[in-house]
Amino acid sequence: MPNGGTTRRRADAERNIAAILDAAADLLARAPDVGVGDIAKAAGVGRVTVYAHFPSREDLVRAVVARAIEESMTAVAAAADDTTDADHAADADDTVDAEEAFARLIRESWPTLGRYGRLHEAALRALPAEEVRGHHERPMDAVRALIERGRSTGAFRTDLDTGWLVTTVYALLHAAADDVAAGTLDRDRAADVLQATLLSVLRPASPPPTPRGT
Amino acid sequence: MPNGGTTRRRADAERNIAAILDAAADLLARAPDVGVGDIAKAAGVGRVTVYAHFPSREDLVRAVVARAIEESMTAVAAAADDTTDADHAADADDTVDAEEAFARLIRESWPTLGRYGRLHEAALRALPAEEVRGHHERPMDAVRALIERGRSTGAFRTDLDTGWLVTTVYALLHAAADDVAAGTLDRDRAADVLQATLLSVLRPASPPPTPRGT
Repeated sequence: MPNGGTTRRRADAERNIAAILDAAADLLARAPDVGVGDIAKAAGVGRVTVYAHFPSREDLVRAVVARAIEESMTAVAAAADDTTDADHAADADDTVDAEEAFARLIRESWPTLGRYGRLHEAALRALPAEEVRGHHERPMDAVRALIERGRSTGAFRTDLDTGWLVTTVYALLHAAADDVAAGTLDRDRAADVLQATLLSVLRPASPPPTPRGT
Repeated sequence: MPNGGTTRRRADAERNIAAILDAAADLLARAPDVGVGDIAKAAGVGRVTVYAHFPSREDLVRAVVARAIEESMTAVAAAADDTTDADHAADADDTVDAEEAFARLIRESWPTLGRYGRLHEAALRALPAEEVRGHHERPMDAVRALIERGRSTGAFRTDLDTGWLVTTVYALLHAAADDVAAGTLDRDRAADVLQATLLSVLRPASPPPTPRGT
């Protein structure tokens, strides 16, 4: 059993880590190139304390990304769970089900993504793109499962690979967050815009128009 | 009038710059974190020569991006010019016109984008995202003009802002290049996949499905 000193030191460390991660998330969301010194200042600790917990700026960015993904997973899991519910009887309308489940997933996960502003940009500057994409594997697995369910019932298109459809969702969610951070997309309209855009991609393709008079 | 020595030195410098940019484009497309030393080696010059022309790695990445954009502009301009042709008489089918012009733009610009592989990732790691997006302003202006033309004739949707539709094109073109570089999207199918995906977004939205039995 740890003595009082050890317990207190551990509590101090946990409080510092939380303060550093909060400050880093907040600053990176607005200024992707912010340095460790400014993060330490905002967290109310010294640079040495930051480096004691996160040996490099890269490690700190990695930890902030991991925590943001954890947070978005809570929202995504809630939306996804709902859609695997056995109560969705076979005679329910599959198309409406799939579209509603997808819309719910966008609506539940958008607030987290929107709040993290330019964090994705910060992550792409500090970490290899492959690693950044890898961090998104779990939420994107939930997106993949939803898309596959929609494809199996004919609600979603099958002329494009599932992998590409998942890429489309991933790319446009982050593009929307970038546009909101840049002030070119209204934060309050972003979920509607994403839903309209992504459902247009996911719905079975309509035949191309034929020229008049043919 | 320069003497022979000056002319020769200038020709040497131009040849070195071209070799450095070729080597940098080739290496950055495959290894976004490649260093100046490796680029110099591949170009057959010393590091000092690279730094004489490009004071920092950032400057070199910037020059490679600018050249790649120039190259893609040649393709985009050819496709866009075609669509502002006065011969497009008012009785031609506007929808088919707009879709064909957009498809042509994708097909003409894709080879350049596809060839540059992970250069966009390299750019995002070396330069602020705002600057990277800024480099794309001219090709994206051509995309914007095409989209606006399609909106004015009813061929393309108007329920989403033009700016967001341009963002969608930008994000998905680069996402496709990333997926091709990662080996998850077949290079030869990418233009077809992009065309199908982006036309689904650009076409006027179809009404949402209604549940059966209502």
